[in-house]
Amino acid sequence: MTADAVELAPAGRARVADAGAGIGLDELALATRNHGMPLEALRYDVTPPGLHYVLTHFDIPAVDPDTWRLEITGAVDRPVTLGLDDLRRRPTVTSRVLLECAGNGRARLEPRPVSQPWLLEAVGTAEWTGTPLAALLEEAGVSPAAVDVVFTGADHGVERGVEQDYARGLPLAEALRPESLLAWGMNGAPLPPQHGAPLRLVVPGWYGMAHVKWLTRIEVLEKAFTGYQNATAYRLKVDAHEDGEPVTRIRPRALLAPPGWPDFMTRERFVRAGTVPLSGRAWSGRAPVTRVEVSTDAGKTWDDAELAPADPAHPFAWRPWIHRWTATPGRCELLVRATDEEGAQPVEQEWNRQGMANNLVQRVPVTVLD
Amino acid sequence: MTADAVELAPAGRARVADAGAGIGLDELALATRNHGMPLEALRYDVTPPGLHYVLTHFDIPAVDPDTWRLEITGAVDRPVTLGLDDLRRRPTVTSRVLLECAGNGRARLEPRPVSQPWLLEAVGTAEWTGTPLAALLEEAGVSPAAVDVVFTGADHGVERGVEQDYARGLPLAEALRPESLLAWGMNGAPLPPQHGAPLRLVVPGWYGMAHVKWLTRIEVLEKAFTGYQNATAYRLKVDAHEDGEPVTRIRPRALLAPPGWPDFMTRERFVRAGTVPLSGRAWSGRAPVTRVEVSTDAGKTWDDAELAPADPAHPFAWRPWIHRWTATPGRCELLVRATDEEGAQPVEQEWNRQGMANNLVQRVPVTVLD
Repeated sequence: MTADAVELAPAGRARVADAGAGIGLDELALATRNHGMPLEALRYDVTPPGLHYVLTHFDIPAVDPDTWRLEITGAVDRPVTLGLDDLRRRPTVTSRVLLECAGNGRARLEPRPVSQPWLLEAVGTAEWTGTPLAALLEEAGVSPAAVDVVFTGADHGVERGVEQDYARGLPLAEALRPESLLAWGMNGAPLPPQHGAPLRLVVPGWYGMAHVKWLTRIEVLEKAFTGYQNATAYRLKVDAHEDGEPVTRIRPRALLAPPGWPDFMTRERFVRAGTVPLSGRAWSGRAPVTRVEVSTDAGKTWDDAELAPADPAHPFAWRPWIHRWTATPGRCELLVRATDEEGAQPVEQEWNRQGMANNLVQRVPVTVLD
Repeated sequence: MTADAVELAPAGRARVADAGAGIGLDELALATRNHGMPLEALRYDVTPPGLHYVLTHFDIPAVDPDTWRLEITGAVDRPVTLGLDDLRRRPTVTSRVLLECAGNGRARLEPRPVSQPWLLEAVGTAEWTGTPLAALLEEAGVSPAAVDVVFTGADHGVERGVEQDYARGLPLAEALRPESLLAWGMNGAPLPPQHGAPLRLVVPGWYGMAHVKWLTRIEVLEKAFTGYQNATAYRLKVDAHEDGEPVTRIRPRALLAPPGWPDFMTRERFVRAGTVPLSGRAWSGRAPVTRVEVSTDAGKTWDDAELAPADPAHPFAWRPWIHRWTATPGRCELLVRATDEEGAQPVEQEWNRQGMANNLVQRVPVTVLD
């Protein structure tokens, strides 16, 4: 296929596609094995099984839940090894949490960072059942000098020349938040293999890379973790040689469930002229969402949508919004943007070379029929 | 992005990518909303929820199961309208069925037919629960002159200029096979939205396009159905102007769960030298699989794999196979092919312009480390 498809990036470097280059076979291989949430599924408060987005860096590991153990180790007074039954006997909570991949929207950037080529569908909201992490760490006795907590999964592979088990460090304060969970259930069923069975981390508000799946080890460190997924991947950098800022919490975003019906191949939308109800969801992992706006004229003018109030029972879920559109015949482009207390989604791209934490507004071309 | 990505096909014509053209944004939009089964999931006898492949032509429709009705009409003595409760009170069976998309492997063809760009992962095996279709048709009293049975879904859109509800005709004899089911359950749970809730057709042995989802209507015809999905899509043709043969039953295929561990971006595999167990699945919707062979030298020589005997309890499921490979350091390419009583998978592509029913052998490049 294209030269793109077979050229490897220099070790340690993320690759950016040449201007105008189509998607490579390597990107396609990621797109066909990972999967997004088709945007019509924004209609569900809780994303049904199999529709939630999935991103796995390596293979989905085969973990035997009967012999599986979780080790809590490092800078703690009382290291401990736990089985699934030990965890299930602990206090159990269920929490509805919006999750989004840090790479969501990457394939819309120009030039296109070469990685999992998400358009806008790397999102979902599930009900996670598990036990709070903080109490486990407190029982283990975290060192007063602790800085980071490192979560290691059973998934193994090579990324930009570095062979590794997937591992992410999380600041201790985030690990100790009461809402950080070790989860064994999803939507009332056991955790499916692709979502981290038998146990994963859930850190509400953070992009997906922090919610480590197939957990085997939790290690408390007295210095910052410098593993690949923190120090090299998941950083906001424009130039390949800069260190960049770490990717952390989810930036505000609103998405529209595309109205009407699609063309199979182009995915262009068609609606009939008249009143067209528009609806979708909005969220932010950084600050409360204060406003959702819709443009039906490609961004020239904006109207406020009706945003549902925050639900105190589900502080980490997405929020529904609706808007009534009077559609007149012709072609147009719908845009939607969310604003949280820290600011609005950008209408022009804010590019970075790994395509991380990009929250450029969605654009939905629509043909309105007589 | 590429010119490909925005150019529309002439109405009614499937498009073929220019030589060397990368994947277009339109193909990517299909790849991110549909999803394949990551091939490590070949390890499961029954594909876990969310890992089974999904292909929807249009949007996943929102169907209210309480008001939903199925109409059986056309050339029958006693047309009938049934609710979900009526169906659930009928004799219920559960059947383990291998399903494969007719477009599986399309993106490996050269030149590449432009449609959902599957590599090799459009497959899965589920346990479907429902009621046999034949008895319902018999009760309705099928006309002695009946030829086809047309199944219409609630999914609606445009394909190559034709606005339509997805509808497929099936020869009457196939509809009357005792194993053809109207299914409301999958893997012991209610049918998920993306798999056709509240009711879909299951026709073991046929490619996925026959297993119509979100069923609303079954119509018996006294002549052959000439709707879009039978007469235009899902036909084997090399030239755009020929009628072509219809796509029907699944051709033989074996797949290998790629051994070792992957590189994140290239998906290239790494294993350590020594004995490497290879395993996977094989199937055919046409005739019993008689043989699975493995090549570890890019197709120069082939060894017989050990194929599990057919399981009489699951005549429509895939069958596991294993092979022990003695890997020596260096790069090599693994191939696997199935043979059924009608013939073997091709090692060279048999091209058709919609990329349908292609069962070219899988190739897995592997680097063997010391």
